[in-house]
Amino acid sequence: MLNTIGVIGLGVMGSNIALNMASKGEQVAVYNYTRDLTDELVGKLNGESIQPYFTVQDFVQSLETPRKVFLMVTAGKPIDSVIEALIPHLEAGDIIMDGGNSHYEDTERRYDELKEKGIGYLGIGISGGEIGALQGPSIMPGGDKDIYEKAAPIFTKIAAQVNGNPCCTYIGPKGAGHFVKMVHNGIEYADMQLIAEAYTFLRERLHLSVDEIASIFETWNQGELKSYLIEITAEILRKEDELTGLPLIDVILDKAGQKGTGKWTSIQAIDNGIPASIITESLFARYISALKEERVHAEGILTGPANSQNHLDKNEWIDYIRQALYMGKVCAYAQGFTQFKMTSELYGWNLPLKDIALIFRGGCIIRADFLNVISEAYQEQADLANLLISPYFAERVQDYQMGLRKVVCEGINAGISFPCLSASLSYYDSYRTGISNANLLQAQRDYFGAHTYERRDLAGVFHTNWQ
Amino acid sequence: MLNTIGVIGLGVMGSNIALNMASKGEQVAVYNYTRDLTDELVGKLNGESIQPYFTVQDFVQSLETPRKVFLMVTAGKPIDSVIEALIPHLEAGDIIMDGGNSHYEDTERRYDELKEKGIGYLGIGISGGEIGALQGPSIMPGGDKDIYEKAAPIFTKIAAQVNGNPCCTYIGPKGAGHFVKMVHNGIEYADMQLIAEAYTFLRERLHLSVDEIASIFETWNQGELKSYLIEITAEILRKEDELTGLPLIDVILDKAGQKGTGKWTSIQAIDNGIPASIITESLFARYISALKEERVHAEGILTGPANSQNHLDKNEWIDYIRQALYMGKVCAYAQGFTQFKMTSELYGWNLPLKDIALIFRGGCIIRADFLNVISEAYQEQADLANLLISPYFAERVQDYQMGLRKVVCEGINAGISFPCLSASLSYYDSYRTGISNANLLQAQRDYFGAHTYERRDLAGVFHTNWQ
Repeated sequence: MLNTIGVIGLGVMGSNIALNMASKGEQVAVYNYTRDLTDELVGKLNGESIQPYFTVQDFVQSLETPRKVFLMVTAGKPIDSVIEALIPHLEAGDIIMDGGNSHYEDTERRYDELKEKGIGYLGIGISGGEIGALQGPSIMPGGDKDIYEKAAPIFTKIAAQVNGNPCCTYIGPKGAGHFVKMVHNGIEYADMQLIAEAYTFLRERLHLSVDEIASIFETWNQGELKSYLIEITAEILRKEDELTGLPLIDVILDKAGQKGTGKWTSIQAIDNGIPASIITESLFARYISALKEERVHAEGILTGPANSQNHLDKNEWIDYIRQALYMGKVCAYAQGFTQFKMTSELYGWNLPLKDIALIFRGGCIIRADFLNVISEAYQEQADLANLLISPYFAERVQDYQMGLRKVVCEGINAGISFPCLSASLSYYDSYRTGISNANLLQAQRDYFGAHTYERRDLAGVFHTNWQ
Repeated sequence: MLNTIGVIGLGVMGSNIALNMASKGEQVAVYNYTRDLTDELVGKLNGESIQPYFTVQDFVQSLETPRKVFLMVTAGKPIDSVIEALIPHLEAGDIIMDGGNSHYEDTERRYDELKEKGIGYLGIGISGGEIGALQGPSIMPGGDKDIYEKAAPIFTKIAAQVNGNPCCTYIGPKGAGHFVKMVHNGIEYADMQLIAEAYTFLRERLHLSVDEIASIFETWNQGELKSYLIEITAEILRKEDELTGLPLIDVILDKAGQKGTGKWTSIQAIDNGIPASIITESLFARYISALKEERVHAEGILTGPANSQNHLDKNEWIDYIRQALYMGKVCAYAQGFTQFKMTSELYGWNLPLKDIALIFRGGCIIRADFLNVISEAYQEQADLANLLISPYFAERVQDYQMGLRKVVCEGINAGISFPCLSASLSYYDSYRTGISNANLLQAQRDYFGAHTYERRDLAGVFHTNWQ
């Protein structure tokens, strides 16, 4: 019997995807460039319908046509190498699918190259980490819709399910799936940093213990903040270090790494005139964290505010922080969804914003109850300019802005940095400013560079001889 | 007699550079792709030693060897086209110099391509706008030092002079000159936005008239804020609209444009792990300004803080704003110079930070008295980790942080957005935080992605099974 799908790349993600597919009734061919990972997977098998192959030719010939080859290979050159190795063995109508974290522009290039050869190419954004890959990730497929539909039954089966609905929907043409995954990761960076800032306030300003903070996150996870990242933060804070008996969080070094997709999100936004300040500040927060030795040195030199800290009412301020975190999240998601919208317009992708919110509800790292209301906002108005002005969120932020303003000001007065909460507030207040100070920028640009300006009262382009 | 230098590209910048060179005793050949601009320049000549040519061949043959060809052509493809047209007429040892706003990576590519042909290539950053080009710009040359030295006498003559010193110094290899010009422009964006935010506070929160604000900027320009951008801001605010009799600033539309170099600065920083939040927020401020129609619509929907504005003591707060602006500038320049330092280390460029500060003092848009103290900081310690921790600035920001904290908080409480002032403060407080919250980010990353973490107390890389 021929295999129904083939998976190339048997690292943890690829192996788990293969196991997931097999558990949903697929007959899966697997191949890895080096034999060790294949052997490792085969050794773990317990009757699953997974068949290993040790040459690309055998692997490809084992597949029913049109052949469906799913790549879970390191992004970059390795993907191109695998595609090159596959091409001689494939025929027109076959389908290659890239489930890795490829840059969407690479996916577009590969799509174009394979299109010429009659081979279908899908860029599949996948979020959920190792566990998601095995038990059900969130899946963001991009490419030709008719080609996607040939693979769709597999993806909808292996995806996370929320209320019986698969967290998988057709995203759009060419690189659209990988683009949405990229911005997903940018939102994830912002969400993580916002949570870290809430934690900092509770710890440094309210002087709560790690256990008390864990309880607060557990409580928050019962309400409108309910989400995977809040849930795991509580679990992280409960974890004890086996070596020292301290909370594990307290022995972890405060230098954050990153693997690229968050960075790509900021760069894409900046390159295309899209405001993405919260995601970008979360990235810079990681960069500054990496300068650990400089920070320790600077701490002894640069002073904070002179006045000592006032007493804050604990319960009152815990709720301000909750409000601040929620509103920060709304602003971060508003920017992320604006990036979807503006890029969709740029490329004519017609991204289904309400469906994207729905498939984020399960499997992926940013899964959260709150995505239901985001989806509803776009269901009510598909061309909504900004999440913030949807009736639901406009009302929410009207209530919660006081909490955010209080928390950020208190941080400023105490000398504690909240880059993402601050950026959220700056964004909110900038976005609702009908008349901004950009007229002064335009005047300066016209003064020194003759860049011209527009007027409020007259159409046309003007230049002033300022001197 | 042969010409000593040739200029290609006779837009306003190129014509003015040619006139500047001629006025300093050079015998200048000029050429433009279309004849009209050449005729225009020739029509304006009044005995200057400028000789027009109408073919590339005639132009090149008119130059003494080694030939020096200075390009002032639109960045991008046009530069490549001109170089291609020149090559058949040049010989080994000749020198092409690009004085436009080329991306430094393009300059590096061209350098490598021409190196193979034995032709020298210099990427020359030039700042100063039209007037600077004519009367003396700030000049940032990059490329091989021995090749630069052949052209150096011309550049040091045509550059702005500050206390008898030319605002021109050898920057470093290959694309280093264009890189420094790029970051200069990024700093310029941040500086402009910081000034716009100070203006906004004076206008919206202290309710001062445009004339009063002009006077404040004039006063500031007598003190440690003395700079070109402060000076022209005062002049801009004094300008009356001939049509309406209103202050001209009040009829200019508040949608800011940008031309790329500021954007490149942010992208380069983000791509290389360099904190550049203030420059990046200034870019996002322009992007949000461009969403004018959305902002006007959102203003009617999104509410501000509930409490009304308290009375603020005018004189007291004008000085807080001055302090905030100065400290914001210090933070922005600290980021810009960190971008020089980190990129210099990345490429092994050995950028001369103290000299870069000196050549920024005249001719260019960000020229300011304050660059003297920046230069001194690097003179005292060439490998200074960050401007903020130099003795001079550490003392300054100790005094001025109160003003910055007050202004940002007051903005937050009044619902006025100060993205760059806020980002400056976030940066300052992040940079002086020895132990940050990035341990939580690392724990989250290890939880959902097995990304591992380091410990504070033990060397090595660790992973926890969190569940």
